[in-house]
Amino acid sequence: MTHTINIQEYVRTTAAAAKQAFYRLSAADSAQKNAALLRMTELIRQHSSDILAANRLDMQQAEAKGLESALLDRLQLNENTLQTMCDGLQQIAALPDPVGEMDEFRTRPNGLQIGKMRVPLGVIGIIYESRPNVTLDAAALCLKSGNACILRGGSEAFNSNLVLAKLIKQALAETGLPEAAVNLIENTSRESVGAMLQSPEWIDVIIPRGGKSLVARIAAEARVPVIKHLDGICHVYIDQAADTEKAVNIAFNAKTSRYGTCNTMETLLVHEKRAAEILPLLAEKYAGKGVELRGCPRTLAVLPNIQTASDADWDTEYLAPILAVKIVDSLAEAVAHINIHGSHHTDSIVTESYTDAQQFLRSVDSASVMVNASTRFADGFEYGLGAEIGISTDKIHVRGPVGLHGLTSQKWVVLGNGQVRS
Amino acid sequence: MTHTINIQEYVRTTAAAAKQAFYRLSAADSAQKNAALLRMTELIRQHSSDILAANRLDMQQAEAKGLESALLDRLQLNENTLQTMCDGLQQIAALPDPVGEMDEFRTRPNGLQIGKMRVPLGVIGIIYESRPNVTLDAAALCLKSGNACILRGGSEAFNSNLVLAKLIKQALAETGLPEAAVNLIENTSRESVGAMLQSPEWIDVIIPRGGKSLVARIAAEARVPVIKHLDGICHVYIDQAADTEKAVNIAFNAKTSRYGTCNTMETLLVHEKRAAEILPLLAEKYAGKGVELRGCPRTLAVLPNIQTASDADWDTEYLAPILAVKIVDSLAEAVAHINIHGSHHTDSIVTESYTDAQQFLRSVDSASVMVNASTRFADGFEYGLGAEIGISTDKIHVRGPVGLHGLTSQKWVVLGNGQVRS
Repeated sequence: MTHTINIQEYVRTTAAAAKQAFYRLSAADSAQKNAALLRMTELIRQHSSDILAANRLDMQQAEAKGLESALLDRLQLNENTLQTMCDGLQQIAALPDPVGEMDEFRTRPNGLQIGKMRVPLGVIGIIYESRPNVTLDAAALCLKSGNACILRGGSEAFNSNLVLAKLIKQALAETGLPEAAVNLIENTSRESVGAMLQSPEWIDVIIPRGGKSLVARIAAEARVPVIKHLDGICHVYIDQAADTEKAVNIAFNAKTSRYGTCNTMETLLVHEKRAAEILPLLAEKYAGKGVELRGCPRTLAVLPNIQTASDADWDTEYLAPILAVKIVDSLAEAVAHINIHGSHHTDSIVTESYTDAQQFLRSVDSASVMVNASTRFADGFEYGLGAEIGISTDKIHVRGPVGLHGLTSQKWVVLGNGQVRS
Repeated sequence: MTHTINIQEYVRTTAAAAKQAFYRLSAADSAQKNAALLRMTELIRQHSSDILAANRLDMQQAEAKGLESALLDRLQLNENTLQTMCDGLQQIAALPDPVGEMDEFRTRPNGLQIGKMRVPLGVIGIIYESRPNVTLDAAALCLKSGNACILRGGSEAFNSNLVLAKLIKQALAETGLPEAAVNLIENTSRESVGAMLQSPEWIDVIIPRGGKSLVARIAAEARVPVIKHLDGICHVYIDQAADTEKAVNIAFNAKTSRYGTCNTMETLLVHEKRAAEILPLLAEKYAGKGVELRGCPRTLAVLPNIQTASDADWDTEYLAPILAVKIVDSLAEAVAHINIHGSHHTDSIVTESYTDAQQFLRSVDSASVMVNASTRFADGFEYGLGAEIGISTDKIHVRGPVGLHGLTSQKWVVLGNGQVRS
């Protein structure tokens, strides 16, 4: 498959088979889908040595290529990570099945009963980088939600993914489900991604998982709808009516509990009336963790020893122990700053004021808006979704953590008794 | 604005202003939005002579250009159509406001209360052709749902749209809402459409309304998410367990009540055990309306005087008094035919069998699935939405008739008491 035309043909043939499998899978009942998920855990345990051997091969090749250690970390599997993956499958099996849920039924004046049924989207393409656990997670979430999937993993994890995909297909076959419900694209060239992005007839939605450059490229090129996560420029706003202890704890936790996650705070906004009291307390705690602060001119008046923030700082996702700090005159200024400079991901207000909390919740245009809670809670597990396939920063279809419901939509159901339209 | 660069600049400046207006509009209460809608009806009545004069100018130019009569029909306004447009505005004002609806709140083990709030999408771009009533409908639906909009109407309706947009902006200003909440692009070149499609930073979703070629081009070129309607290849399936009278009435109504609508049946599927009884009854009724039938070989055995259907007929939206007819062996064959050849728009089964009805509802992957009802009911007014901005044949975000809810999505709301993540 060295020629582009053949890769396109291969991807489309795979996607067409996935579409047929979707029609069977969408009508499968939960018991059968759960049986397949549990069978996967058994096969992974039985074949753990095969998986780890394939992963060692990937690791050796990645090391030989000089991959950086963060990527190697993501690539590496061991008995513990396999156990975590199996736990994840069991959790997904235990979740309620969203497919077939019916609601909003109303009877119209002509006697038609009209409502909605929750249904899978169809064929979902997942394009991801070095984490082999995504292969299993994504396949399991798609399967449980009745979707067929096409998995295009990164070249670094090729051998690991191949073994995992084989076991997934074996579990499907052994439980009477179509093997083509889960498909690994066994080609890690750019052309295979391109072929997926250009196939709206066969693939209903693409979910990229990976670094910003991958996601941005996919969003720019795709002719298939994309559910994506771009930046995580999250804010905590310490309101005039904030409780000091909550403000300090939340602002500290939102920055320091992990630096590399998308729900980490990148900019702290503080009401001018509270800055002199709260910023020194926070600065001391941040200093203890080695967090570099970059402030607006008014912040520097309170904390004279920190760096001056440049315009670019307000628009930067550091993913590092760096925090931009800005003093604002009002809640309205904080909201305006967040809507302009944020990434519509997760933003939190610390306040005891009912009115300020309500105004913040209503006015901030982000996927998650919080009161008196750390932004770090923006996550499918913390929200009770059981699992997530990603976090959407898009405005349509689904915002924030995407669980099983985000992999479905609703069709209309019309129940009549012979009605015709006049 | 003859240079492309200037048109891009103009569209982006307009869209940036719309984004700012959206932030104000998204926080406006229903009373204020309804007041603006009702003020629009007053202004349209007061200025009806201006609107009709502008429309006469459009009609004269369109006639001079030799536009076909169907297009001229869509373009023409008169006192009656203005009254219908005002009635539509009043209906939208009377609908419940979806913005701010909160539900699904649950308390997590750590005490966080987590739920969802319904919010507008942001800035919606509407690209449409000759119908000036879309200017008012689209503006009203976007306004009520808290979205700013950018309207790019067709060149044929330019003068009509200009007067309508001026009155809309006047109503906004007089009721304290930002005028930039509704924007008409005063440039009807291809470049202005292109600039909208390439502006994901400013425009959150594009809704094209028009013929298939326009919609397909927009979907292919857009870097902004699109909610679209492509084909309406709708089916009625007469099941083995169909009631004869219902079958005949529904199949007759679904084809003949209007030929040019997207929810008109284009292919009739009949179970082999009922074909000999029902097809001759239907053929007689269709003949009375001048409907041309094109049948599969088995249909020709029952109705020897009709045309033979070619392969292309099963994939054709006639929008004309033509009907493809196919005899199938089973419900499963009917479902497979619909999923392969249909357009995922609207499909109906006629049956008295509970089990067959359930299987059809579950297995047919269409935006609207019906039992014992004419496909012609697939429409926002008939579904009780009050109004629709279009009908989606997409799989994500919203399927079928799109009303106010389809112009919104849900953000997460997290209510804490100082929680931090461990």
